[in-house]
Amino acid sequence: MTIRFSKRSNVFKASEIRNKLFDDPEIISFAAGKPEESIFPNNELLPLIQNIIKNDAQNALQYSSTEGFKEIREIIASQRMKKAGVNVTEKNITLTSGSQQGIDFSAKIFVDEGDVIICESPSYVGAFNAFQPYLPKYVGIPMDKDGMIMEELEKALIENPNSKMIYTIPDFQNPTGRCMSDDRRKRLAELGSKYKIPVIEDCPYGDLVYEGERHPAVKSFDKDGWVVYLGSFSKTFAPGLRIGWVCASDEILKKYMLAKQCSDLQCGSFDQKIAISYMTKYDLNDHIEDIKNIYRERRNVMIDSITRYFPKDVKYTNPHGGFFIWIELKDGINANELLIEAANKEKVVFIPGGSFFTESSHNNFIRLSFSFVNEDKIVEGIKRLGKLLHRYYN
Amino acid sequence: MTIRFSKRSNVFKASEIRNKLFDDPEIISFAAGKPEESIFPNNELLPLIQNIIKNDAQNALQYSSTEGFKEIREIIASQRMKKAGVNVTEKNITLTSGSQQGIDFSAKIFVDEGDVIICESPSYVGAFNAFQPYLPKYVGIPMDKDGMIMEELEKALIENPNSKMIYTIPDFQNPTGRCMSDDRRKRLAELGSKYKIPVIEDCPYGDLVYEGERHPAVKSFDKDGWVVYLGSFSKTFAPGLRIGWVCASDEILKKYMLAKQCSDLQCGSFDQKIAISYMTKYDLNDHIEDIKNIYRERRNVMIDSITRYFPKDVKYTNPHGGFFIWIELKDGINANELLIEAANKEKVVFIPGGSFFTESSHNNFIRLSFSFVNEDKIVEGIKRLGKLLHRYYN
Repeated sequence: MTIRFSKRSNVFKASEIRNKLFDDPEIISFAAGKPEESIFPNNELLPLIQNIIKNDAQNALQYSSTEGFKEIREIIASQRMKKAGVNVTEKNITLTSGSQQGIDFSAKIFVDEGDVIICESPSYVGAFNAFQPYLPKYVGIPMDKDGMIMEELEKALIENPNSKMIYTIPDFQNPTGRCMSDDRRKRLAELGSKYKIPVIEDCPYGDLVYEGERHPAVKSFDKDGWVVYLGSFSKTFAPGLRIGWVCASDEILKKYMLAKQCSDLQCGSFDQKIAISYMTKYDLNDHIEDIKNIYRERRNVMIDSITRYFPKDVKYTNPHGGFFIWIELKDGINANELLIEAANKEKVVFIPGGSFFTESSHNNFIRLSFSFVNEDKIVEGIKRLGKLLHRYYN
Repeated sequence: MTIRFSKRSNVFKASEIRNKLFDDPEIISFAAGKPEESIFPNNELLPLIQNIIKNDAQNALQYSSTEGFKEIREIIASQRMKKAGVNVTEKNITLTSGSQQGIDFSAKIFVDEGDVIICESPSYVGAFNAFQPYLPKYVGIPMDKDGMIMEELEKALIENPNSKMIYTIPDFQNPTGRCMSDDRRKRLAELGSKYKIPVIEDCPYGDLVYEGERHPAVKSFDKDGWVVYLGSFSKTFAPGLRIGWVCASDEILKKYMLAKQCSDLQCGSFDQKIAISYMTKYDLNDHIEDIKNIYRERRNVMIDSITRYFPKDVKYTNPHGGFFIWIELKDGINANELLIEAANKEKVVFIPGGSFFTESSHNNFIRLSFSFVNEDKIVEGIKRLGKLLHRYYN
């Protein structure tokens, strides 16, 4: 049976993050970027959901509009986007199934085969998996502690006139945990306008800042409508309700709405009603403050443990938000092999860093996530990993 | 501001079905294929949903697997697919956001630019909207009262070696309401094998049969794994929970699972939990029997009213299932213009038939849906439409 698949489906790749190995309950997993589930607001949700079923089931269970209920888009505009420094109304918002679907649609809308997508190097592997079926080329821009280096970006824009979009995760980037400085955010928006190229700002972690204030979104510096902001409630509320959004200027937003309509009509009506009920009765910012306290502590414990148990030469980022710490091991260590050893011998797993690069020669990096593991397990897991690493460094 | 969109996004089309005009409560709408909402099982759902939040919220609100919870796939295999005459396990099922997303993924997986999609003529406009971004060509196969004509299909397969998939809605086809005979279903599966071409069987209405038994799915005659079955709970349970599924052989199913993972990771976890709870405690077939009684009566009333109020020369289908009646008006009547007149003067709307054809010269057809309108309004709406039509026929 020889099936004639499309060219694009021959490059589909399974997510390295959604590896079933990582679900083994015996294993300490620093792999998945899942939110802690004990802090979902179940008690608050119970009466709200009862009320939806009793009084609004006909809307919650029925088809609804492609862009999403007006109420949820108003909440997104007046609460989430405002907090990110972006002044818009619900008319500039359309829903997607998590920001992941917004990533897929970005390539669908802007990228023809062979076009260039410019992104940070390294960048989110799930974005590469979404982009890949559109058969793009990539140009990766080096980063420093303040994120993507703007001089390098401008050079790439000049050298690659067939660049069709810039994909960036400015806040606590996946996988590095790095955060783009406010100056660079402003510059990035300017470069979008100057080179007339869409800047796709993927921002699932923006609210999860553990020191200081939330950074203004790149979108907040956008004067001419070239920045597309992808938002999500997956990390701040509940990923099981698939609600993300796109905030963009009219002409671009229309394309996202149509991409959604063509692809799967709409987001879940009930999911939206749950979010509307909760965010009308409660301030999501209060909930975010509570979960930040938990994640901040886990970050602290992981950094402390790394300092204590990892070989001194191991380099690591110390993120002031988000879920991830990025580890650079010495040359010659292959993180894919290390993962197998760590899983089998030490019952601890992580994501090898290679797949976060557009080029395939960076095998000495690993991504650690601290979001889903309690503090005792973080200490234990890092200790075990450290034990393993010391063998390579001694 | 000149935005360089992708070639594919320049052909995005807004759905003629999701026209805001149709939401005007003053208007009698035979347009949307929405299920009746008074029959959603709210009372049964209330305690089940309470139970989910009290005892299973951590799973219902968290990320879950791309293919869907095992329980819902088992229910789909053992209940829905079995009823369609298909013997599979949960291993042959992966979830999609409604069968609409399965339609999108079918083109994504099988169709390169310029490849041919073979479909019934006319066929579902929402499928064309999903296919269009993959820049296919279409070959429409004529139908008679027993559905797609198999001799015509085989001729098309021979004449178009670059055909990459056959898209069919065998049960109460959208828009015609026609149902493919069992002989042709068998033959269609054989042709899929003979020409090694995937047959995409889109089946949202299969269970909604108002006379006789459910027809065996084309998939039930599939010996070599060329038939891909797209199922949905949108018409039999609740479309606001976005749960559809793909049932396919291993190699093909894997591509759908990866398409889902790349695009939006997974279906809503809470939505799945609701469906699992309901379909474990209750037999969905009982609920389907109840809703069939309502739809059957509406179908009867609409057919009676058409007989009574439409000009005698108007041709119409008399479907034994599904949501739609397909009307052929005399040559020269333009259904798009008729819609404007009907909406403005008579406050009644429908879907003009032209967009259901791959060629653009069929403007004398209209699609009427009886699913969402109560019987009094059906009589009144058809009466008004008849009044308008008589002017064209006298």
